[in-house]
Amino acid sequence: MWYQKHIIISAKPRGFHLITEQIISALPQIRSLDVGLLNLFITHTSASLAINENADPTVRSDMEAHFNVLAPENAPYYRHTYEGPDDMPAHIKSVLLGASQTIPISKGKLALGTWQGIYLCEHRDHASERTLIATLQGE
Amino acid sequence: MWYQKHIIISAKPRGFHLITEQIISALPQIRSLDVGLLNLFITHTSASLAINENADPTVRSDMEAHFNVLAPENAPYYRHTYEGPDDMPAHIKSVLLGASQTIPISKGKLALGTWQGIYLCEHRDHASERTLIATLQGE
Amino acid sequence: MWYQKHIIISAKPRGFHLITEQIISALPQIRSLDVGLLNLFITHTSASLAINENADPTVRSDMEAHFNVLAPENAPYYRHTYEGPDDMPAHIKSVLLGASQTIPISKGKLALGTWQGIYLCEHRDHASERTLIATLQGE
Repeated sequence: MWYQKHIIISAKPRGFHLITEQIISALPQIRSLDVGLLNLFITHTSASLAINENADPTVRSDMEAHFNVLAPENAPYYRHTYEGPDDMPAHIKSVLLGASQTIPISKGKLALGTWQGIYLCEHRDHASERTLIATLQGE
Repeated sequence: MWYQKHIIISAKPRGFHLITEQIISALPQIRSLDVGLLNLFITHTSASLAINENADPTVRSDMEAHFNVLAPENAPYYRHTYEGPDDMPAHIKSVLLGASQTIPISKGKLALGTWQGIYLCEHRDHASERTLIATLQGE
Repeated sequence: MWYQKHIIISAKPRGFHLITEQIISALPQIRSLDVGLLNLFITHTSASLAINENADPTVRSDMEAHFNVLAPENAPYYRHTYEGPDDMPAHIKSVLLGASQTIPISKGKLALGTWQGIYLCEHRDHASERTLIATLQGE
């Protein structure tokens, strides 16, 4: 079985946001699969997807703080500067984190670990909504 | 054909560890596939999976040394500190490296390059065993 | 439907290179799929694959500049040094960016966003050609 759907994530502030429940709600087809895979792909270059801790909000704010160190604004060697100081760091954060995540499906559920959640990582200061393509397959 | 299995990796010291042989041994089903994909997914948020050099152990110890620079302990802006100084860096390393790897299968074998191996990246000082979900598909 | 093919990318200078058109040209089978996934896997440990901005070349040169900061040459703690000063940084960049990318297929096309392209990230100073394994599936 193959199923594909666009999922729109409303505009979010810059930072790391849990979207696990929104993804599961948008894909009731997961429940019909005994074994399979979900690929989530973000069609943007200044936001990304990650999987990490789903409980303590300070993990997500520390992620934002630390990625701002790993990919700082206004590095003297940046030449791609005309879209604002947050743009080139957003591209760098996006390739570090990745445009897609693949998650196993077991017995009708996403087989995430107890502490795992799906993050939408928004790297722009003033973002619009973001589009994800969910591709589901299995049997 | 779909096949899914949990693979338990025994507790490892902090660092980068080759697990290629253990994965292949646990999945004799790979041999029955002419073309396919293996998705390996780790169900934890402070350990990760990567693919890199399989020969010289100093590559893996240099990885550990450098990731400790990329995601240091005790950064002054960390707020998620109550699980120990190695915890927040472990979450950051995990999103940098990733929770899953997808590897092609060709003619009954994992189609890794000559120098490629699968790494279990353990980011905690005192970890327990780690669970991977292997999802195999192909024909 | 499963299809797998080796794609050879000719030797590139160190840096980030757009290969989207070459990938699409090599895989006319994409046009026959209504829904599916393409997995691209690089069989090397000092080059990697990423997805990011496809328009302004300074994004790609800024990526090269910044990854040289994230994984510098000649860090005093590197022990894997006998393959040249660019080798250990190449391994680190490779695990940060990743050995594979999975891209959805919709209605006969790669479902990349408007601004997304596929990057071959070459991390060695004097590289040879690179081999990708393209695994296509769908219906």
